[in-house]
Amino acid sequence: MKQIIVVNESLKLPRGKLAAQVAHAAVAAFLEASDEAQRLWLAQGMPKVVLKCETADEIMQFEEAAKRRGIPAYLVSDAGRTVVPAGTITCLGLGPASEKELDELTGELKLVR
Amino acid sequence: MKQIIVVNESLKLPRGKLAAQVAHAAVAAFLEASDEAQRLWLAQGMPKVVLKCETADEIMQFEEAAKRRGIPAYLVSDAGRTVVPAGTITCLGLGPASEKELDELTGELKLVR
Repeated sequence: MKQIIVVNESLKLPRGKLAAQVAHAAVAAFLEASDEAQRLWLAQGMPKVVLKCETADEIMQFEEAAKRRGIPAYLVSDAGRTVVPAGTITCLGLGPASEKELDELTGELKLVR
Repeated sequence: MKQIIVVNESLKLPRGKLAAQVAHAAVAAFLEASDEAQRLWLAQGMPKVVLKCETADEIMQFEEAAKRRGIPAYLVSDAGRTVVPAGTITCLGLGPASEKELDELTGELKLVR
């Protein structure tokens, strides 16, 4: 089991802002998951990976694909009080779900450095 | 209600690594909170702030102070597979708790940029 957070790297969010958005996605996607998926993921130490894509459109396509496959998904759009305009899509939380399911979905994406 | 994640900024973690650690702290501290605190915080849109301090010792002092005050607290130490040595304290998740309680505890700390 793992969780993947896909970040809209075109925004080049500063470190603290990015971290807050990714945390939001992680908590919200966790709450979308079944009790069983939550339990397994917690027991395994909550593994998570932060990956990047280059546009909000791409992120929305991942969200749709995840929902079609029954993978928990939560799209984060920023309230716009600080760094980016209101409604900007900043990231997408996926899972907890099996590594296999998530890798089939996001296997092409690279790590955020 | 809010959540605060205090980061060990002396590590100067890269963006993606920092985001994953902060997300870990956010989920784990959330799970330490009472049902009532969870419910209120979720209803308010899960507000969270990422603050910094300069040493692991300082972070551990915040953890102790939080626990004395009954504030949910979860210390994250990295498994050490990638960027930092195993056991390195990377961050501390605090809350969900009231803004007042958290500000009394961490009011001196600055935002991570």
